Amino acid sequence: MVEAEKQEAGITSCERDALYKIIFSRRDVRGQFLSEPVEDAVLSRILYAAHYAPSVGFMQPWNFILIRSREMREKIHSAFTRAHKEAAEMFSAERQEIYKNLKLEGILESAVNICVTCDTSRSGPVVIGRTHIDTMDSYSSVCAIENLWLAARAEGLGLGWVSIIDEVELKKILGIPEHVIPVGYLCLGKVSHFWKKPELENVGWLPRLELDTLVNFERWAGVAAKEDEPLVEQLKEDADFPLNSQRK
Amino acid sequence: MVEAEKQEAGITSCERDALYKIIFSRRDVRGQFLSEPVEDAVLSRILYAAHYAPSVGFMQPWNFILIRSREMREKIHSAFTRAHKEAAEMFSAERQEIYKNLKLEGILESAVNICVTCDTSRSGPVVIGRTHIDTMDSYSSVCAIENLWLAARAEGLGLGWVSIIDEVELKKILGIPEHVIPVGYLCLGKVSHFWKKPELENVGWLPRLELDTLVNFERWAGVAAKEDEPLVEQLKEDADFPLNSQRK
Repeated sequence: MVEAEKQEAGITSCERDALYKIIFSRRDVRGQFLSEPVEDAVLSRILYAAHYAPSVGFMQPWNFILIRSREMREKIHSAFTRAHKEAAEMFSAERQEIYKNLKLEGILESAVNICVTCDTSRSGPVVIGRTHIDTMDSYSSVCAIENLWLAARAEGLGLGWVSIIDEVELKKILGIPEHVIPVGYLCLGKVSHFWKKPELENVGWLPRLELDTLVNFERWAGVAAKEDEPLVEQLKEDADFPLNSQRK
Repeated sequence: MVEAEKQEAGITSCERDALYKIIFSRRDVRGQFLSEPVEDAVLSRILYAAHYAPSVGFMQPWNFILIRSREMREKIHSAFTRAHKEAAEMFSAERQEIYKNLKLEGILESAVNICVTCDTSRSGPVVIGRTHIDTMDSYSSVCAIENLWLAARAEGLGLGWVSIIDEVELKKILGIPEHVIPVGYLCLGKVSHFWKKPELENVGWLPRLELDTLVNFERWAGVAAKEDEPLVEQLKEDADFPLNSQRK
């Protein structure tokens, strides 16, 4: 066994601030795609960001299916349209009106679609860290998607996650075998602009929750003890931190 | 309805490079934790990074349970130990020896443990984008974990995800109700150093896969058409990109 090497360089405070700026300015993009293609050099970097996500037992369960043909995209778009109609029926009459007017995907307009999968059989039947929680492998593919998303934002590209689709139908269209999960179907491409806030926040569908109400102590719904109060104060004080970071 | 605002600032190439450096130098930390506490200002920033993850239908299904007491951590550690023994039995004799010598958690040594949950009932029974794929809400919490992980690395803190634990037991210990999923149990704290490569790669458990073998075209296992070849070449050329970014 080769002696393990330590990392040489640390992260500077400027690099740290860059990460926060990227995290806070990332958006789920559906309506601002331009038709220009994405350069291979950029696409390659973004895919490496995804490939270096954490994975349970280092199984790297992901594949990245790149979809560019009009024919394949139209099939996916039809599957979306069917699911979208079914979904609309599930909302109350009042919400249905808002729902129907939301633009929820950019399948045909974006430069490229990427289906990120999880091959549950990769590296064999027993995986370190997946022995007790069997969703851990698909969670690894989700981490890859989030890395890909942040890298896309850093490259100035928009990305939208299409989840209103029947999974069985999606697998059939893309020829995905039984033991492989299509974890995320993504639309990626150049965009005219990014919105300052998430679109569902903009249209008043749901508000941004206050972070200090989501932090519990020691147990579910556990309230802050005396020694936890400074952190709660800090969370309240930092409420504008994301917006300020985004502006930089 | 208020007119939606566009983002003011773009991402510079230096900021983009910072993201790649952070992504490629992130590690799953188990054995290098120091006993010093994490400052509230840092913890607050990291939690905001998590809170600004993408979430299906903007439901923000996460809670962050911070666990610091010795008593609670010992209960969790016992649950880990039981699961770890069960897990060891699942590997072949040869792999069992390696498995037993791996350090797989830092529950007691890290400064703070964080359980990131997914409240499936948040924002009501019908959620935009969760109508057809019901795991989308837990995927949102996974995105929050990945943001938190990257922010921790950017702040120089180590983080490890403990998944070798019985979920029912974990819920009981933390008093988590039926409709809430404990998506990830994390150990966070200051560390002596970060390894250059993932530990499971260092010990020869599994190799890093070659990214160009994981990229398919148009469909599952779809090979590159003539027009896709430049991207495949680019992926091969960029094989050292992660290591070079990490060094900067």
